[in-house]
Amino acid sequence: MTLQNTRSTNYPEWYQNVITAAEMAELSVSPGCMVIKPWGYGIWERIQRLLDEKIKETGHDNCYFPMFIPLSFFKKEAEHVEGFAKEMAVVTHSKLEKKDGELVPGGELEEPLIVRPTSETIIADSFSRWVKSYRDLPVMINQWANVVRWEMRPRVFLRTREFLWQEGHTAHETVEQAEQEARTMLDVYIDLSENCLAIPVIPGKKPEHEKFAGAIDTYTFEPMMQDGRALQAGTSHNLGKNFAKAANIQFQNKEGKLEYAATASWGVSTRLIGGLIMTHADDEGMVVPPRVAPQQIIIIPLYKNKDKIDAVKAYADNLQAALAKQTAFGEKIRVRVDQRGKESVDKMWEWTRKGAPIVVEVGPRDMEKHSVLVRTRTHITDENWKEFVDFDAFVASAGDRLENIQREMFDRAKERLDAHVRTDITTPEAFEAYFANQNVFLERTDVPTVGFVRGKWSGDETSLEKMKEMRITIRCCPFDQSGTTGKCLLTGKDATLDVIFARAY
Amino acid sequence: MTLQNTRSTNYPEWYQNVITAAEMAELSVSPGCMVIKPWGYGIWERIQRLLDEKIKETGHDNCYFPMFIPLSFFKKEAEHVEGFAKEMAVVTHSKLEKKDGELVPGGELEEPLIVRPTSETIIADSFSRWVKSYRDLPVMINQWANVVRWEMRPRVFLRTREFLWQEGHTAHETVEQAEQEARTMLDVYIDLSENCLAIPVIPGKKPEHEKFAGAIDTYTFEPMMQDGRALQAGTSHNLGKNFAKAANIQFQNKEGKLEYAATASWGVSTRLIGGLIMTHADDEGMVVPPRVAPQQIIIIPLYKNKDKIDAVKAYADNLQAALAKQTAFGEKIRVRVDQRGKESVDKMWEWTRKGAPIVVEVGPRDMEKHSVLVRTRTHITDENWKEFVDFDAFVASAGDRLENIQREMFDRAKERLDAHVRTDITTPEAFEAYFANQNVFLERTDVPTVGFVRGKWSGDETSLEKMKEMRITIRCCPFDQSGTTGKCLLTGKDATLDVIFARAY
Repeated sequence: MTLQNTRSTNYPEWYQNVITAAEMAELSVSPGCMVIKPWGYGIWERIQRLLDEKIKETGHDNCYFPMFIPLSFFKKEAEHVEGFAKEMAVVTHSKLEKKDGELVPGGELEEPLIVRPTSETIIADSFSRWVKSYRDLPVMINQWANVVRWEMRPRVFLRTREFLWQEGHTAHETVEQAEQEARTMLDVYIDLSENCLAIPVIPGKKPEHEKFAGAIDTYTFEPMMQDGRALQAGTSHNLGKNFAKAANIQFQNKEGKLEYAATASWGVSTRLIGGLIMTHADDEGMVVPPRVAPQQIIIIPLYKNKDKIDAVKAYADNLQAALAKQTAFGEKIRVRVDQRGKESVDKMWEWTRKGAPIVVEVGPRDMEKHSVLVRTRTHITDENWKEFVDFDAFVASAGDRLENIQREMFDRAKERLDAHVRTDITTPEAFEAYFANQNVFLERTDVPTVGFVRGKWSGDETSLEKMKEMRITIRCCPFDQSGTTGKCLLTGKDATLDVIFARAY
Repeated sequence: MTLQNTRSTNYPEWYQNVITAAEMAELSVSPGCMVIKPWGYGIWERIQRLLDEKIKETGHDNCYFPMFIPLSFFKKEAEHVEGFAKEMAVVTHSKLEKKDGELVPGGELEEPLIVRPTSETIIADSFSRWVKSYRDLPVMINQWANVVRWEMRPRVFLRTREFLWQEGHTAHETVEQAEQEARTMLDVYIDLSENCLAIPVIPGKKPEHEKFAGAIDTYTFEPMMQDGRALQAGTSHNLGKNFAKAANIQFQNKEGKLEYAATASWGVSTRLIGGLIMTHADDEGMVVPPRVAPQQIIIIPLYKNKDKIDAVKAYADNLQAALAKQTAFGEKIRVRVDQRGKESVDKMWEWTRKGAPIVVEVGPRDMEKHSVLVRTRTHITDENWKEFVDFDAFVASAGDRLENIQREMFDRAKERLDAHVRTDITTPEAFEAYFANQNVFLERTDVPTVGFVRGKWSGDETSLEKMKEMRITIRCCPFDQSGTTGKCLLTGKDATLDVIFARAY
């Protein structure tokens, strides 16, 4: 039941196949936009629930800002940029009307409105009115919203014109506090990625040329996909006083003097689901880590024997009720009986493609033996994919099983990451030869593989041009910069920065 | 500390004063849009959480559809309408660029996009591809999203260009099943309104001329605001096969024949928060029912005595920890210590204006007596607004106190509703005289008050014109239509329909 394309034969097509087979999302008739279907959206809801708890625990409140931003908000930004042109959706009219039988836009707006690509400017504008005294600080807010960037080559979850995200925005008395905030939220994201999504990451600072425009520092956490590329998954920025100056966020300090506030911002998006797929899915379809699985256990009743339908149904319902009382990760287990009128074998494969962590089948023979047939999604290629387990023993072990699956998934991804960060490449020639290989599915052993390189960088223009040619980027400067100095892997010049080089999504 | 305007002096201004004083929301620099601030958004999050549980319990899954709908989707609708003109936001360009030093829209789109006023059409289009056989039915989905309607006279929560809502869309094999769905969701909404928001309602069917265009039946639940007006708070529609025919949602039935599906849809929005304000707020500010209060109990430590700050802080933290272990409505109590560097009296009034159900103050003297000072928001005008209560007794009673407040709030609103549905008006003259009164705050006894009238309606054109003149509407036909026949209150003609007449938001 392998997908049409596998990771080793055609990685990009495999990615699309997984999404289609798992019924997670699809491209819409609305150009460049996606429909997120229940299984994909259910994963997003789990991410929201887990991250939102942490956002609140760290002292933030949610709120909501308008999605339409007046054009004049972009004027300041445009002033300083030669040939300014930003891809974004522009609302110019306020009605549809019939004219000579044709349907056309009417009611032209005096000032066009931009559909938010991010809410930085409009939120800063509110802050400038909310903040008057040091007593009003810090302001620590977050919003869950849709944003728009006019992508020309849409890919579901990775690059669509509209996507969902959260954006946190905070204002503080000092730049040190903004720095603290940016680092705290980076830690929250690392925790989300590693402990909830089972995606190991390399955290660090973005180099100067990759920073969010106007930020003092941009922090990032870089995961490795199964084709060795990095994924830009989320960032956290210390904006210093730059944004407060532009938006005039001033407060009276304890000494009674007017001062600019320091701000920070941070965000992750539905892109994380793309990262989840490219970290965990296999050639049979999606594999969802239990912590973010909308359903962790699916029960399929086998109804072939018509005389036993009621009895099997009751047995399945009992199993569900017993499991729903168990916990995993400190939460009640999410379990559903699949009662739809489809063949049970089709249901089993459907949930396998969707990547439900555990699929259980129960039929008349299982009832006799007081047992259940358990399939663990991560073990699909192992001998123990199918196990007959005693009913009570399964119920008692369900929480542990889910927690073990989560751990196994993280460990497997961590092993892959660790194995593919090369630190032994020391010359520009070896570096170029390494990245001259095509990116390929990392678990093939019969071809060269390309992952990350950790090494030195001189930081000059020549190095940036060289990277562009090679289509590689600097993902981050890891926090540990204690490595000895050496020669830049791109230019051979003296270098002190220790960075992660990679191709990236 | 009464608000600048009270309900009896200026009801519309009072409404704005409450929202400002409670820091729930504000009109934005983005024309006609609102910023929902943490306390207002916290209430929306509670509504979402409670309603979302019920949406899932009734078998629906959440998903997400694009907010941009191609203009061509509106062509069919426009064909049949003379002088079609719909107020909506139209995206015509895909970038901003600099031209002769000016910032202007660029990259004109081939086909303009409409920002969704509702997702009926684009979701139906997906259904037409998802549904092939009776085995694919029912499809039962919901989305939480922002929608846009180009309002010209914005009022926060009641009428803004962008607002937040949920919209449920389902497809079924038969019209009976769609009808069942519409009624089930009406019941979910009534439960939400009465049991969570403490807003009593009169449910029923919308009359023909008030139905959602294309629906077989539109169901509604009508609450009464403190000025006697109804609020359109949410609706549930049985769309029969009309939408399926327009969008070509066809399935192969059990006999192998192609058939159109039957669909239903239902939605409520941030308007509910407007209803919450106009049902419960008083002349001191907002009053939030405990079930939807972001924080149910606020603890204010009194720090005047500098020597006792640490001790008082510990006392407040202990109280919070003890309360957080208690439950109300089957959930953990939401309690926060207000540690901000403001005067405690200012904090007390701030939380009073915000309508936190219970505000507790603790200072050195309370510590000595092992007691706390409890203020119950709903009792602000009573003798027992302030109570000194033993620490342990308060902790033990906190859940009951919150549940009692919720009940009291519902009972009070229900009493108001019941007292102001007139059933004794039987002639067009008396009816006209009744509605000739201005709407006024219902709890004044020194002036005539105007609420709802329940009575007969003939359903003809003349009656519709008469209502327009009088600026009243038919809110619904209550389900119990067993009343004897009689004369229409508008035209004096024979009538059989028993309806609710009212002014409305």
